[in-house]
Amino acid sequence: MSQRVFSYSELYQFALQVFTSIGCSNEDASLATSVLLSADLRGIDSHGIARLVGYVRLWEVGRINANPQIKIVHETPSTAVVDGDRGLGLIVAPKAMQIAVQKAKQVGTGWVSVKNSNHFGIAGYHAMMALTEDMIGMAMTNASALVAPTYAAEKMLGTNPIAVAIPAGKEAPFVADFATTTAANGKLEIAQRNNQPIPTGWAQDENGQATNDAHILKKGGALLPLGSEKEQGSHKGYALGSIVDIFSAVLSGASFGPWAPPFPAYVAMPENMPGEGLGHFLGAMRIDAFRPAEDFKSNMDLWLNRFRSAKPIQGQEKVYVAGDIERNMEAIRMRDGIPLVDEVVNDLEGLATKFKLSI
Amino acid sequence: MSQRVFSYSELYQFALQVFTSIGCSNEDASLATSVLLSADLRGIDSHGIARLVGYVRLWEVGRINANPQIKIVHETPSTAVVDGDRGLGLIVAPKAMQIAVQKAKQVGTGWVSVKNSNHFGIAGYHAMMALTEDMIGMAMTNASALVAPTYAAEKMLGTNPIAVAIPAGKEAPFVADFATTTAANGKLEIAQRNNQPIPTGWAQDENGQATNDAHILKKGGALLPLGSEKEQGSHKGYALGSIVDIFSAVLSGASFGPWAPPFPAYVAMPENMPGEGLGHFLGAMRIDAFRPAEDFKSNMDLWLNRFRSAKPIQGQEKVYVAGDIERNMEAIRMRDGIPLVDEVVNDLEGLATKFKLSI
Repeated sequence: MSQRVFSYSELYQFALQVFTSIGCSNEDASLATSVLLSADLRGIDSHGIARLVGYVRLWEVGRINANPQIKIVHETPSTAVVDGDRGLGLIVAPKAMQIAVQKAKQVGTGWVSVKNSNHFGIAGYHAMMALTEDMIGMAMTNASALVAPTYAAEKMLGTNPIAVAIPAGKEAPFVADFATTTAANGKLEIAQRNNQPIPTGWAQDENGQATNDAHILKKGGALLPLGSEKEQGSHKGYALGSIVDIFSAVLSGASFGPWAPPFPAYVAMPENMPGEGLGHFLGAMRIDAFRPAEDFKSNMDLWLNRFRSAKPIQGQEKVYVAGDIERNMEAIRMRDGIPLVDEVVNDLEGLATKFKLSI
Repeated sequence: MSQRVFSYSELYQFALQVFTSIGCSNEDASLATSVLLSADLRGIDSHGIARLVGYVRLWEVGRINANPQIKIVHETPSTAVVDGDRGLGLIVAPKAMQIAVQKAKQVGTGWVSVKNSNHFGIAGYHAMMALTEDMIGMAMTNASALVAPTYAAEKMLGTNPIAVAIPAGKEAPFVADFATTTAANGKLEIAQRNNQPIPTGWAQDENGQATNDAHILKKGGALLPLGSEKEQGSHKGYALGSIVDIFSAVLSGASFGPWAPPFPAYVAMPENMPGEGLGHFLGAMRIDAFRPAEDFKSNMDLWLNRFRSAKPIQGQEKVYVAGDIERNMEAIRMRDGIPLVDEVVNDLEGLATKFKLSI
C-alpha cells in the first residue's frame, strides 16, 4: 500500500481550516486540531487525521454541534458533571479536563464526568494535560458497542480506553493509554486493508467461536476484552470496559452499553437511548496533595529508571515503560513527517474539494 | 485431595482468637477477621484463612505491629496519606477507606494512599465498604514482585489487584476485584497441589519463554501481566500493574516495584528499600456528587439487567456481571460452610496448638 508523507504543520493547517469551515471558532478549531493530530504524532494512526472525514460527516447529519455551549450542570468541590452540548469530543474533553485541574488546585483532586459529547480522539492527550501542573491525569471514554463480554454472543461495550499520565522529575513521564480490549479496532482495520488474518484472541464470530477473520465484525462477530478468553482473564478486561462505561456514561447521564452512539454517520442511532450522547470521565490528582512533589518525583525517577533498565528477554533490546514507544514516535514524526495511506489521503482530498481548500 | 468443611462462625471465632492472641484489640481482631473471611466466603480461597498462619509468622519476626498507631501524615480536603505503622493491612486498609468515605461526604470524593502497611486481604472488601454509603468504592494494593513486565526477564511487579464497587437500585451491585495478571498466584498454587500443568499464557520461564510448569516461579520464572503476550495486549496489563504500584506506593512513600516487601516471613526483606512497607490506594466517590442518586441507580439497574440478560454463547448458561459469581458463592458458603483443604487445616491446627485454642 503506497503512502504520502506530510509535515505536522501541513496537516495542522489543513485540519484547522476544516474545523473552521464547519463553523468552529478559531480557538476551538485550534484545540480540536491539536488533540486530533497528537494521535498521528504518537503513532495511533486510527485516531488521528484519518478520522477527520468522519467528524465532518457527523456534523453534516447534525450529530455534532460546532458551537457547543459546554457547561457544568452539577458540581461539588471535587466533582462536576459537564454537558458537552453535542460538541466535538476533541473540544469538550480538554475543557472538562481543565475543570478537573482547577478543582484539584482547590481541594487536591478533581473528577469530571461528561455527557452529550462525541469521540474525543486519544485519551492520552487529555490525561497528559495534567503533567505540566504536577498532577496525575486520567481520561476514559465510552464508545459504540463492538466488544462481547465474557461468555456473551452480543456486542455490548465499546473499546473503552483508559489513559493515566504520571509526572516524573528528570525521567520522561509514565503515560499509559490503551483500549480495554485485546486489540483496538484500528488494528483490525489495518489487517483488513492488507488482506491479512488477525491473531487468535482478538475477535470471535457470531457464535462466540475464535476466529482469524479480520472482517468478522461485519459478520456479527465481536472484539474480545483484554485477556481474550475466560481462562486467560477476559472477565478482567470485561470488568475494565464496564467500569469505563459506567464512570463515563452512567455517572454523567450519557448513553451507555449497547446504546452508545456510533461514530460512522451512516449507522442509525440506537433506539431507546437511556442518556445523551457519548460520555467521558476525566480526573486530576495534585501530587502535593499526597506528598511533597520533589519527593514523589525523585521516587518516580527511581521507579522509571529501574523499569527501563530491567533485563530484557532474549531477542528484545529493552524493556519499555508505558508511553515510551509513543514518545519516540512523536520525535520521529515531528522531524520526518507523518505518513498517510492512500485511503486517508483520498478522504482529505475529498474534504479539500468540499471546503475549497488545498492539501 | 481431602477437605473439611467449617461453618463461617467456627472459622470466625477461631481467627478472632488468633488475632487477639497476637495482641490485637478486640475491635481490631474483629475487623481483621471479617476482612480475612470475606475472601473465603466469596470463594477467593488463596486470600482467606489459608493466609492466617502467614500473618502470624510475619508478626513473629516483627514485621507486623499488632497495635499500630494508624495516622494521617498529610491531607487536603479530598486526599490523605496514611501511615499504617506496620499494622495488619486487614485493619489499616478499612480504616483508610473510612477516611476516604468521610472526605467524600465533605467534598464529593476521597482518596487515600497508604504506606507502611502489610497484605490487606481481598481488595473487594474495602471497595464494597462504599456501597452502603451510596458511593463508588475503589481499592488497590501493591505486593511483592512476581510479575515480569512485557519483554522483561525479571520479576518487577506484584499481582497488584484493583477492586471497584458500584451501587445499584434493585439489582445486585457491580463488584470487580481482580489481579492485574492473567492468573493470580493462588491459581498456580492450586495447580502445584494437584500436580497439574498450567495453561499457556499464565507464566514464563527464566528466559522469558512460555511454560506450562506450575512450579516455574521457584525456578526463576514469572507470572505474566493480563494479556499474557505483547500481541495479546500484555503491555496493557503491565501498565495496569504499574499504575497500581505507583498509586499505592510511590504516592504514599511505601516501597515499590521489585522492592515491595514479601509476604512469606522466611523471605528476606529487599535491600535498599525506597519506602516504608506495602502501599494501598483507596477511593470513594459519592454518587450524588455527580447526579441524583435515584437517577444513577435507575440507570445502573438498566445497565446491570441488560448485561445479565445478554445472549450467551453456545455452551454457557448466562452472562455474568463482575461480582455475580462471588456473590452466589457467598450465599452458598454462608449456608453450607467453607471447605478447607488438609494443608490449610493442618496450619490452623498448628496455630491452635501454639495459642492453646481449639479448632
